[in-house]
Amino acid sequence: MIFSVTILGSNSATPTPGRHPTSQLINHQHRLFLADCGEGTQMQLKKQNIRFGKINHILISHLHGDHFYGLIGLVMTYHLFGREQPLHIYGPEGIRDIIDIQLKASQTRLVYPLHIHVVDTETPSAVYEDDLLEITTIPMIHRVPTCGYLFREKPRDRKMKPGIVNKLQIPVDLIGSIKKGQDYNDSNGKLYQNTEITLEPPPPRIYAFCSDTIYQEPVAEIVKNADLLYHEASFMHDRIEMAHEKFHSTTIEAATLALKANAKKLIIGHYSARYDDLKPLLAEARSVFPNTFLATEGACFEIE
Amino acid sequence: MIFSVTILGSNSATPTPGRHPTSQLINHQHRLFLADCGEGTQMQLKKQNIRFGKINHILISHLHGDHFYGLIGLVMTYHLFGREQPLHIYGPEGIRDIIDIQLKASQTRLVYPLHIHVVDTETPSAVYEDDLLEITTIPMIHRVPTCGYLFREKPRDRKMKPGIVNKLQIPVDLIGSIKKGQDYNDSNGKLYQNTEITLEPPPPRIYAFCSDTIYQEPVAEIVKNADLLYHEASFMHDRIEMAHEKFHSTTIEAATLALKANAKKLIIGHYSARYDDLKPLLAEARSVFPNTFLATEGACFEIE
Repeated sequence: MIFSVTILGSNSATPTPGRHPTSQLINHQHRLFLADCGEGTQMQLKKQNIRFGKINHILISHLHGDHFYGLIGLVMTYHLFGREQPLHIYGPEGIRDIIDIQLKASQTRLVYPLHIHVVDTETPSAVYEDDLLEITTIPMIHRVPTCGYLFREKPRDRKMKPGIVNKLQIPVDLIGSIKKGQDYNDSNGKLYQNTEITLEPPPPRIYAFCSDTIYQEPVAEIVKNADLLYHEASFMHDRIEMAHEKFHSTTIEAATLALKANAKKLIIGHYSARYDDLKPLLAEARSVFPNTFLATEGACFEIE
Repeated sequence: MIFSVTILGSNSATPTPGRHPTSQLINHQHRLFLADCGEGTQMQLKKQNIRFGKINHILISHLHGDHFYGLIGLVMTYHLFGREQPLHIYGPEGIRDIIDIQLKASQTRLVYPLHIHVVDTETPSAVYEDDLLEITTIPMIHRVPTCGYLFREKPRDRKMKPGIVNKLQIPVDLIGSIKKGQDYNDSNGKLYQNTEITLEPPPPRIYAFCSDTIYQEPVAEIVKNADLLYHEASFMHDRIEMAHEKFHSTTIEAATLALKANAKKLIIGHYSARYDDLKPLLAEARSVFPNTFLATEGACFEIE
């Protein structure tokens, strides 16, 4: 079951050559989500050959321009392409007015349903759920109301032990309920405990998107055991004072959070435009959390 | 004296690979102007190595997204870079509210003065003037209030005939007024008519930016004798009905307008995303107006 994160934009504040403002595509079993949508996101989607008409949910962390100035362009492109599917946008209070005023200026009445959901940025709250996945907010501390998003798979069905169906002649119509934990009585009345005939399912996977925020340890509890954690690292650690003044984090702080959360893998990003060379940021983060990787445009992280 | 137009975006409606929404940089004697500012314009400015901190005036033709969605990103980048110079934005009613609501959402108080000027899109009206240049609106007919912009140089001073200053021993402090048309009395009281000692200045140059619009012949009078005319040509002529329905123009119409206006050179652009290959559009326009060129990203047109 696919669960991957593709980086569309890795930079903070303003674009630099080759680095775009924040946006990520999350693909969960071919259901596509965007996390943030900085200016030029629609161009980045095309560049990565992503069939972006299939994105039905866009999650915005906060209303700083480098996280949402590309939203209206994408909303309008869907309109011009004659989209029919509803589009859902999630984010802090204020998005609706910004979209509405721009649609009004161009006298546009969208040809598809646009649903805007104001999210709770202060307490972890459910924003989305389907049969496989749920998404909740992660409160961030930044200069404006901000939240990250936690993508957590729902527990999957147990697996039939290899060969067991044939061996015990289990009727096909019972397999669904057995996978959900039911025991099995065979035609002679013999009882098989569920654990005798099934295996544990793979554990639910977690992706946590944390941007933008000052370092805050309580987040470690919320993103605990994340298989993949994206945490902003706008600055190297020698600029920790500047980071705190601007409510951002450093490489060491992002790595420390990954460590405390017992994350399996860390992606850092949202780099200050002052850094042309990102290798020192990576090295610094790895000194604390070795399994760290750089967000770079086009990089795709598969969650195993 | 430099007078040039650099194409930053040539496409209509939505970006396609390598083609960006409308924006042009006009350089008049190192004074930089933007005409329109589609999404990604700031990236395009960087890609073309343009020192975009020197742009003080941005002219917006209309409030369709492909002509202004890049404006807020540029406004914000100037803020983050600590711009000090005032920035002037010209365009139809509505721009101010769109910028203000987005600045408010990010709790941003710009560090530089931003002046927004609502322009008259219905009658040709002055919007800008300096010692060398004046800019007026060109009424366009489109689905929302729209205007093009006419950049017209002011008449320049006459030129002293080569060698005449030494020959007649003309005092240096009189040269300025002679260049402006005054006759000259030498120390013996002999009168020289101005035309005897000066030459005609080069004629004032004109650039006309016409986007978006349905074809309308009266525009030819407004842009008469333009040295360089940009006219949108969203469609080839076989789609003239579609063009008219959408209030756009065809290649043949753009070329016809150039012909009727007695323009010296025509640039076409604002291509529908349906055209991958632009050569047929160029050929079609050249069948009516041979001195036609394609707007392509990065192309720079010097006005002789």
